[in-house]
Amino acid sequence: MTQVRVVVTLKPSLLDAQGRVVQDALHSLGYTEVGRVRIGKYLELDLNEEANGDVAARVREMCERLLANPVIEDYHFEVIS
Amino acid sequence: MTQVRVVVTLKPSLLDAQGRVVQDALHSLGYTEVGRVRIGKYLELDLNEEANGDVAARVREMCERLLANPVIEDYHFEVIS
Repeated sequence: MTQVRVVVTLKPSLLDAQGRVVQDALHSLGYTEVGRVRIGKYLELDLNEEANGDVAARVREMCERLLANPVIEDYHFEVIS
Repeated sequence: MTQVRVVVTLKPSLLDAQGRVVQDALHSLGYTEVGRVRIGKYLELDLNEEANGDVAARVREMCERLLANPVIEDYHFEVIS
């Protein structure tokens, strides 16, 4: 079985409102050392033995078609065997 | 500046309904090699120069108090200098 870990984040130029809220909440709790906070999605995909050929190319396609919105989001992933 | 990358996931024993939906959607798109999908949160925290002492201990505290719900979620993080 192959595991793939995908991280999807907002493009750096976009305001991350949710991250801003978390940053403010951390400050209220006394963690004033926290600067910018960016929040994204983390996905773990287990691929079964049918997964053959170019796993990275298939996963890139999944990200482009479903897992990320390439207009506003970046993604990266690592394949763990 | 120190960057910390935090990943928060549902505990493995809990049903990940959102992951299930993504798995079904990937199957509909023809990616039948995808087995279980688990979805979590990814956070990037930039810590400024006030961050001194035991960064890992501080971040663990932030996770326990705000970033994760330790009853139903696991978390792990890495500190990048």
